[in-house]
Amino acid sequence: MKADLIAFTTVSDPTLANYAPKLAGEVGVSYADSLSEFAGRSCYQSFSRPRASTASNDAYLANIIAQQHFSVLEHASATFYVTGVSRYLTHELIRHRHLSYSQLSTRYVDESNVEIVRHPTMTDDEWKELLELHTKAIQTYQILVNKMEARGLKRKAAREAARFALPGGIETRIVVSGNLRAWRDFFFKRWHVAADVEIRKFAGLILEELRSIAPNSLQDIPKEPYGTDEG
Amino acid sequence: MKADLIAFTTVSDPTLANYAPKLAGEVGVSYADSLSEFAGRSCYQSFSRPRASTASNDAYLANIIAQQHFSVLEHASATFYVTGVSRYLTHELIRHRHLSYSQLSTRYVDESNVEIVRHPTMTDDEWKELLELHTKAIQTYQILVNKMEARGLKRKAAREAARFALPGGIETRIVVSGNLRAWRDFFFKRWHVAADVEIRKFAGLILEELRSIAPNSLQDIPKEPYGTDEG
Amino acid sequence: MKADLIAFTTVSDPTLANYAPKLAGEVGVSYADSLSEFAGRSCYQSFSRPRASTASNDAYLANIIAQQHFSVLEHASATFYVTGVSRYLTHELIRHRHLSYSQLSTRYVDESNVEIVRHPTMTDDEWKELLELHTKAIQTYQILVNKMEARGLKRKAAREAARFALPGGIETRIVVSGNLRAWRDFFFKRWHVAADVEIRKFAGLILEELRSIAPNSLQDIPKEPYGTDEG
Amino acid sequence: MKADLIAFTTVSDPTLANYAPKLAGEVGVSYADSLSEFAGRSCYQSFSRPRASTASNDAYLANIIAQQHFSVLEHASATFYVTGVSRYLTHELIRHRHLSYSQLSTRYVDESNVEIVRHPTMTDDEWKELLELHTKAIQTYQILVNKMEARGLKRKAAREAARFALPGGIETRIVVSGNLRAWRDFFFKRWHVAADVEIRKFAGLILEELRSIAPNSLQDIPKEPYGTDEG
Repeated sequence: MKADLIAFTTVSDPTLANYAPKLAGEVGVSYADSLSEFAGRSCYQSFSRPRASTASNDAYLANIIAQQHFSVLEHASATFYVTGVSRYLTHELIRHRHLSYSQLSTRYVDESNVEIVRHPTMTDDEWKELLELHTKAIQTYQILVNKMEARGLKRKAAREAARFALPGGIETRIVVSGNLRAWRDFFFKRWHVAADVEIRKFAGLILEELRSIAPNSLQDIPKEPYGTDEG
Repeated sequence: MKADLIAFTTVSDPTLANYAPKLAGEVGVSYADSLSEFAGRSCYQSFSRPRASTASNDAYLANIIAQQHFSVLEHASATFYVTGVSRYLTHELIRHRHLSYSQLSTRYVDESNVEIVRHPTMTDDEWKELLELHTKAIQTYQILVNKMEARGLKRKAAREAARFALPGGIETRIVVSGNLRAWRDFFFKRWHVAADVEIRKFAGLILEELRSIAPNSLQDIPKEPYGTDEG
Repeated sequence: MKADLIAFTTVSDPTLANYAPKLAGEVGVSYADSLSEFAGRSCYQSFSRPRASTASNDAYLANIIAQQHFSVLEHASATFYVTGVSRYLTHELIRHRHLSYSQLSTRYVDESNVEIVRHPTMTDDEWKELLELHTKAIQTYQILVNKMEARGLKRKAAREAARFALPGGIETRIVVSGNLRAWRDFFFKRWHVAADVEIRKFAGLILEELRSIAPNSLQDIPKEPYGTDEG
Repeated sequence: MKADLIAFTTVSDPTLANYAPKLAGEVGVSYADSLSEFAGRSCYQSFSRPRASTASNDAYLANIIAQQHFSVLEHASATFYVTGVSRYLTHELIRHRHLSYSQLSTRYVDESNVEIVRHPTMTDDEWKELLELHTKAIQTYQILVNKMEARGLKRKAAREAARFALPGGIETRIVVSGNLRAWRDFFFKRWHVAADVEIRKFAGLILEELRSIAPNSLQDIPKEPYGTDEG
């Protein structure tokens, strides 16, 4: 499993300086956090940071989070290219309708060599069982594609039917983007002890990357998954 | 594949009559179409149907569609309970973020007896290949669940890993709801010759049901799928 | 201010009975609550209500709410026709992007006789001040419309500019629809002591109506607005 | 009216190069357009640009647009800080639910010195009429705020009621963000001859700025507004 931060929002400091000189190019404050503060302060036209208690970026955003004024966290966004995850993970992931997705198509891509993902909880022995089944499934996939193409179906049409044989655990790849509020909603559900172990691990990876570009906007997200394990 | 219309929007005619007596309880006009017209006319406060050219519900909604004033089609909604479809279908379906979903959980439900869906394009021979693979996959699933439970994993944790062995074509069930605009967007993409055959067939089923409760709001949707087959 | 429940989701009990006989037509349970339970149980295929602790609709939905499994509350929806509210209210209301809207157009409707809304906190004396200003504003509106039409602008073009003179407190009318989850989000923000008094009152009206058709899906919403007045 | 591009998505070229060396750091291609192509190609794993007909960024995105594969345009986003627009404009703007907003609050900000926007179609004479009314409205606003504060209402409570006197044409300020698909939807409706002249002008400003950072993703948007003036 890999999640590479491939794009994210950057701020034009000269433009920001026209409206909020105290915020523009502030040392030690990321673009995303700076933009979140700017958006919040635009509602009150308080670009001069008039209150001592919220005069730093981290204090200001702590207050935004405490007030649940989450719409100000919708401006900065981040894009990841994700590989090595299962289609079970993406089937859950894409339920988060405020994120955006471009996913590898099993209709357009030949899956004859697709790998299967090892679920994080699997022992070597269990993994071996899965691999054996996967080998058979790939064979069936190829037999089906061949039969269908032989009777005149186009490649796309053959693959869309033959893929029914492929295990649900096969690897998929996906580009996923979203603003900080959308990612926060994602963490609330999936950075959680009740979540599937694979997607929880994925949430942890994303969280780590996002903290590097928006630490203050995510300051309340716990280091360990939310919740308690009730079984 | 089955898609049962299990709930839909009904109008309170006495309330409607307070504002738009000509629209309330009109013979031959469905609740959904009536509500769409009411919503459109509320923008112009034209409840008296002042223009001859749009004085009937079907003519009025034809004009709404021609003007692409689609937001007035967001008020009436419909809910289906869908069974006998594959997880490939639902993985595509749930990309439509304006519809709403409640789906059978493969983490919480024992899948030892889950069936596999026959893709509509499969011949008997191909279907037999798929069934054989499915039988093996179910065996692997059960072996994995047993091994994992034996070493102390909870059922949910065992199933979430063991399901990686199940074919992507296994049956799932889903409750799906949406307003007419959201359904129209769905048809635009999936009631299309370029769509996967399974989801296109599904779109046809839904369309037929929706036409029975909102014919005029869907009057421009073609009887045959959109598009031309460019291969 | 008036908010009339003009349409809402009803369930087809015979169809529901095919899948969940215990839920279909249950005495004392509303359509919306029944649909919410059905959607929740479809995820677990637990239509037989196997657990004693959640064997009633209200207990089941209490648990759904406690688990924050809010997507199951997205299936039932309700539509209101709202009159007698200000454009300040609607400017706040329509930020709730999961609700749907059709609003009176100040470009297409002649606003020469539009009324102004009395904000709930106004004394008679303050209201008199506002009415005086409103009278002058209407005069300016009419002067502007006349001048613009006299120099050849179309009615729509004249009104779209002349309306700049109309007070922000003028009455508007709006059709608003949404599923229970979207309404719950609305209550969370606007049925709150920190909200504008007009929209809080509006939230109270909607809440009362919705409780009549979905009491169990809203059982945790307090009788008094959320929050404490921190000033 | 001013719309400053204050933030936008930038791509990490070294990361992009790991997956799509032909796309990374390509001369003459913007970050946004590069990201759109990357997202599209990820679906087909065609990072090597195998087809001659779509081997350039502009040709590739022309094809994406022709195929209406708009979800690949959801990854790159842009943020504007907008000043000098009316609350009529923002009341229309915020109906676009896929964009994100942070707007000046008339409850929290003192509006005693707020300016009124000159609608683009107004003559000097008409503008003078509007200014006269605005002066009276400001006076009423101040009288109302004073009366309300004198009887003990808090500032926020006084302003939320007194603002009912302010003209709908007063200036507001807003931070607005969105991905390219959301902006395209906005153009489709507002960069249109049937749109209000103010918001059409605004759409033109935004379009010009966005073309500078995403020309190929917007290549089909016309130089002049969509549609024909049917009156």
